[in-house]
Amino acid sequence: MNKVAVYRKEHFNAAHRLNNAAWDEVRNGSVFGKCNNPNFHGHNYELIVKVTGLPDPETGFVIDLKVLGDLIEENVLSKFDHRNLNIELEEFQQTNPTAENIAIVIYEILRKKLDSALDLQVRLYETERNFVEYPA
Amino acid sequence: MNKVAVYRKEHFNAAHRLNNAAWDEVRNGSVFGKCNNPNFHGHNYELIVKVTGLPDPETGFVIDLKVLGDLIEENVLSKFDHRNLNIELEEFQQTNPTAENIAIVIYEILRKKLDSALDLQVRLYETERNFVEYPA
Amino acid sequence: MNKVAVYRKEHFNAAHRLNNAAWDEVRNGSVFGKCNNPNFHGHNYELIVKVTGLPDPETGFVIDLKVLGDLIEENVLSKFDHRNLNIELEEFQQTNPTAENIAIVIYEILRKKLDSALDLQVRLYETERNFVEYPA
Amino acid sequence: MNKVAVYRKEHFNAAHRLNNAAWDEVRNGSVFGKCNNPNFHGHNYELIVKVTGLPDPETGFVIDLKVLGDLIEENVLSKFDHRNLNIELEEFQQTNPTAENIAIVIYEILRKKLDSALDLQVRLYETERNFVEYPA
Amino acid sequence: MNKVAVYRKEHFNAAHRLNNAAWDEVRNGSVFGKCNNPNFHGHNYELIVKVTGLPDPETGFVIDLKVLGDLIEENVLSKFDHRNLNIELEEFQQTNPTAENIAIVIYEILRKKLDSALDLQVRLYETERNFVEYPA
Amino acid sequence: MNKVAVYRKEHFNAAHRLNNAAWDEVRNGSVFGKCNNPNFHGHNYELIVKVTGLPDPETGFVIDLKVLGDLIEENVLSKFDHRNLNIELEEFQQTNPTAENIAIVIYEILRKKLDSALDLQVRLYETERNFVEYPA
Repeated sequence: MNKVAVYRKEHFNAAHRLNNAAWDEVRNGSVFGKCNNPNFHGHNYELIVKVTGLPDPETGFVIDLKVLGDLIEENVLSKFDHRNLNIELEEFQQTNPTAENIAIVIYEILRKKLDSALDLQVRLYETERNFVEYPA
Repeated sequence: MNKVAVYRKEHFNAAHRLNNAAWDEVRNGSVFGKCNNPNFHGHNYELIVKVTGLPDPETGFVIDLKVLGDLIEENVLSKFDHRNLNIELEEFQQTNPTAENIAIVIYEILRKKLDSALDLQVRLYETERNFVEYPA
Repeated sequence: MNKVAVYRKEHFNAAHRLNNAAWDEVRNGSVFGKCNNPNFHGHNYELIVKVTGLPDPETGFVIDLKVLGDLIEENVLSKFDHRNLNIELEEFQQTNPTAENIAIVIYEILRKKLDSALDLQVRLYETERNFVEYPA
Repeated sequence: MNKVAVYRKEHFNAAHRLNNAAWDEVRNGSVFGKCNNPNFHGHNYELIVKVTGLPDPETGFVIDLKVLGDLIEENVLSKFDHRNLNIELEEFQQTNPTAENIAIVIYEILRKKLDSALDLQVRLYETERNFVEYPA
Repeated sequence: MNKVAVYRKEHFNAAHRLNNAAWDEVRNGSVFGKCNNPNFHGHNYELIVKVTGLPDPETGFVIDLKVLGDLIEENVLSKFDHRNLNIELEEFQQTNPTAENIAIVIYEILRKKLDSALDLQVRLYETERNFVEYPA
Repeated sequence: MNKVAVYRKEHFNAAHRLNNAAWDEVRNGSVFGKCNNPNFHGHNYELIVKVTGLPDPETGFVIDLKVLGDLIEENVLSKFDHRNLNIELEEFQQTNPTAENIAIVIYEILRKKLDSALDLQVRLYETERNFVEYPA
């Protein structure tokens, strides 16, 4: 039997800035441009979590999307929503909160919470025009 | 030469409920929650059909998307649109009409109608936030 | 000072059918077509509630959109979501649940809950292509 | 002859927090909830500017939408995009940057730049679900 | 009793160019820029038709949206879709096909087909970011 | 370490027609229908460029999406936007500008501009309902 992928879309709003602490201000400004603003800017992040597996023959669900939604709420949204990623999240104390790195962090959080028989992929929209996917 | 994927988006509106006839009312209510409502609820289902193959050198088409649209209309929409999936579709007499199972049923219908040289995948949005893909 | 309009978007999923109990089956079928299916069909209804008034000088809010969201949740969504409008809502025992009539019913429910200094308008999407607004 | 309305959609990303400096921390937290986070959060703001007037008989334009786009870019986006509204914009030193107040500020900026024969209205989406319009 | 507004969304694809035949090439190029390309360019026009009136007490419809859709199909889409507006539509032989003028032309066509008790307004999206409404 | 995919969405407006110069008018009309209109029609093409690779440990970027946007602007949009694809682009002098072929042409253009360590895929929306992806 073939696997089915199920997707759950969620969102959170957060402030961030892009900065490499190992670089000086000039280099940071030159590489990250207005995203380097020391006063921060922010986004409405759209998060799409993809879980792949075999549907349970009794329920017809790969995973109950309400359960998946609750899992995302408890482990990701409660931690990221209405936060300053640079200041308030330990994961970004040493790591630049680019869309790529935010997606990797969210993947790592959710991977530990999901049955290992299920595959996981995370898509994150920073804006409607800029988005990322992990793992590719 | 590499293959190209072409996609056609269609939609249908239908009523359904989630229920496992082998379970009692309490278990169904506990697993399926408000989706178990015996009076049904409904959705605007968005359907995206992906067909992959080599473009015909004379037309530049993998498959004429108007032809694909007509195929979906005749074989899927005419059967699913403005229907009660649980009551009116034989495919869901023994199978719970979860998004996963609806996508599998639509795949099986279209697979028989398409040239075997073409690959097929079905994505189905039950809501903007909950969607599935088969095969994964 | 000019008024500001604030909008809150919510959604619910419901089953319905269009039918006039005073007409026979042939006339209902001829006027309402596939929307007359006695087994029901359904929609993802998108609801946009517009409230117009003067911003409070202390908060900068016309109305706190979280408060408005909770008001819609408690008075509309809890009643309409995952329901069969024809069978389960008293408002549609004598009234055909067209998008027009559903919008009027939702307006009447919310009008009683809002400060009379605030204007109210309801927009309801039955599908992405068919939607209504009340009062016009 | 009737007037025509033309609309231009733009966007900017910014950080903000909601806070009334005249209140203590407890009252601010109780009224503004997680929007009061002292470390800020942020949004992808979508801005729709509506200009109403008679089309010029020679061009068929009410206003060239490229000209309107440039006007918004120079006077609004260059000032708001990738900024911290509370820290970096003088307009929000005394005014809480709610969606209502941001829309009023943008209206006031653009009103001075537009021909007085043209009517102006501003719609601002803080998120897809929360948006405002000024004047109502 | 208050009126209700109903909306129907349709779309068409067309080629056009902006040009004032009374002007020379230099002036046309300077005013209309790349929209003046003599070889044309094109758009996916999204059309939203708004009809306002009292719901019929027997049907609950202001106007059956399927009937409105057919009216738009027969009188607008069949004439505009997959056409070159400058070459193939008599309405644009003397009139520049700006979004403003296309909306006015569509309004005039539909106004003659609708019951005079119903109000009519047309919204036309040339792109997602540039759109117009008539009458304002 | 796993790769990350990053996406950039851009758009352009163009005129085209579908035609096989080796066929007579009757066969072209029969195969391509209204898309064969000799006076052209047009579209708002939405282009999504996907680039896959390992994030740079210093920036956290697979590729700076502003850099990718500029690359698309300089090499694709400046060439395709507000153009007649059949008349003005050498790539479509011998090749029918179907969505499939336009995507292949854009892929070939961008492939030469990108570091060979990065994977590339192009998605092109001709309309919201018809879109293609290359390579599949």
